[in-house]
Amino acid sequence: LAVSADIEGIFSAAISGDRRMLARAISMIENRVQGTLGALAALDPDRKRYAGSPRVVGITGPPGAGKSTFVNLLVTEARERGERVVVLAVDPSSPFTGGAILADRIRMEQHALDEGVFIRSLSSRGHLGGLSRAVGQVVDLIDAAGWDLIIVETVGVGQSELAVCEIADTAVVILTPESGDAVQAMKAGLLEIADVFVVNKSDRAGADVLLRELELAVELDESATWNAPVVKASAITGYGVGDVVTEILRHGDWCEGEGASEWSDRQGRGRVRTFLDLIGEDARFAAFVALNSDKAALKQALESGESNPYRVAAEYEA
Amino acid sequence: LAVSADIEGIFSAAISGDRRMLARAISMIENRVQGTLGALAALDPDRKRYAGSPRVVGITGPPGAGKSTFVNLLVTEARERGERVVVLAVDPSSPFTGGAILADRIRMEQHALDEGVFIRSLSSRGHLGGLSRAVGQVVDLIDAAGWDLIIVETVGVGQSELAVCEIADTAVVILTPESGDAVQAMKAGLLEIADVFVVNKSDRAGADVLLRELELAVELDESATWNAPVVKASAITGYGVGDVVTEILRHGDWCEGEGASEWSDRQGRGRVRTFLDLIGEDARFAAFVALNSDKAALKQALESGESNPYRVAAEYEA
Repeated sequence: LAVSADIEGIFSAAISGDRRMLARAISMIENRVQGTLGALAALDPDRKRYAGSPRVVGITGPPGAGKSTFVNLLVTEARERGERVVVLAVDPSSPFTGGAILADRIRMEQHALDEGVFIRSLSSRGHLGGLSRAVGQVVDLIDAAGWDLIIVETVGVGQSELAVCEIADTAVVILTPESGDAVQAMKAGLLEIADVFVVNKSDRAGADVLLRELELAVELDESATWNAPVVKASAITGYGVGDVVTEILRHGDWCEGEGASEWSDRQGRGRVRTFLDLIGEDARFAAFVALNSDKAALKQALESGESNPYRVAAEYEA
Repeated sequence: LAVSADIEGIFSAAISGDRRMLARAISMIENRVQGTLGALAALDPDRKRYAGSPRVVGITGPPGAGKSTFVNLLVTEARERGERVVVLAVDPSSPFTGGAILADRIRMEQHALDEGVFIRSLSSRGHLGGLSRAVGQVVDLIDAAGWDLIIVETVGVGQSELAVCEIADTAVVILTPESGDAVQAMKAGLLEIADVFVVNKSDRAGADVLLRELELAVELDESATWNAPVVKASAITGYGVGDVVTEILRHGDWCEGEGASEWSDRQGRGRVRTFLDLIGEDARFAAFVALNSDKAALKQALESGESNPYRVAAEYEA
């Protein structure tokens, strides 16, 4: 009970603007400290984002596509407009890509001393999974704390980037001529999720082919009410980067105007998904606790190979 | 009831050696057809793998590391020994890597007409996740069908390759000098999981540095009873490829001999994890059904943003 009162204190200080407590509350979510869900449940349901203010921008793409450059630009631009910005860097801890994120964080140093910017990495610990769950919870907390813009950057490795795009109000997918063809992006479902496509390193061979493939794919998707723009850019020379920011802001406006009902449907589906994830993970955790207490016999049957997991699951659920 | 009898018929034909029915049963698992868990629960718990015969080899590594070449070699070698082989290619459908797997399948064509080889891709559908669950179930089915060797190949993108390595009896991690340093592999937990490391494209710059880093890391891990060998190879020239196969076979022998109790502990932990995953996913699915029937009011509260997922979860579970 003392612990739980403490958590509520930390969360309420975080929401009131205490950066140190915000960092601590995020760590508690990340580490699944007991009681954090209760603290999240107590968040004001009438806060801005629920009431119709889109302000989560997701940035994804393969390693080396130039994501951090665009994140930096977005931060600078938002600061010029006087907005307070959070950057969440989602690191799925892939054995083969993990290095990129750390390097990106170092490049973000220009904003590190700015009180109006809060930068934070979120990584998945071990094999528990649930990274996108943690991201969703952290976004809800930051939203309640009243920050104006939340940028979620994720390195494109598997399912996690899709999940993070779904949390975002505006999903930006950055591709390069080297990163493989547009067909792959479509196959993986990015086409349905991306609100803005960026073809970075647009001076390289293959950029125009990629551009046309993406434009054609967007055009062919007749069900869409928002036609995702495809923007050519070169983060290094600066070519087109202003256009990227413009398109992101234009999509934000669309969410609040013409696309409001579609945007709010998307948010609603996201909340349903978060709820289902919570139920699944709670049940898994309860079973874990049971195996180590009153259901020790089932654990023994599993470990020895006396029975199989499917049979034990049927028994447990009966 | 008629459906369920049908499923049992398909599974029992699959186990008795009917390839067409095996393909169909795998599709049913992949598509989560109702009744497949019951059919899996009915599998003989005394089958070879549970009784101590290791024969699942997992192959992972970043795209372009040369995985399919080694899979091909393993298949050829096993066929020469008269073993019947299944290759499962796990495709997590990453937007940025999906293409590699298809190309690999084409290269496998030399085994396509061999009755002693069964090749199958498993991909994740949409955002449901649960790919490693499907792989585990398919491995259990194939094991019950009496195949001698099961090779699970996965492209290294995030958490899924770790999960697949855990299903394997012998986990082979293929790296190249280009694929980033060994430190990343350690950070991601591959070091604890890999049974054989391969440094492919060993004629390229950086190969010896990578080799030494991996060897040092293996040496420093004093808790390990099996010291993962680090093998230099070049799949293109053929250099060292025989050594890779030798080390894989040597690890299989170790699992049956000196390392038998450690191997069986690992299998036991895998069964516990599969059980927990089943419980979690069943609860998630039950909640999904409830939202669309008697708990429609909760769904409405989520979709409208009247309440938040944490609060609704607490209500649902109460």
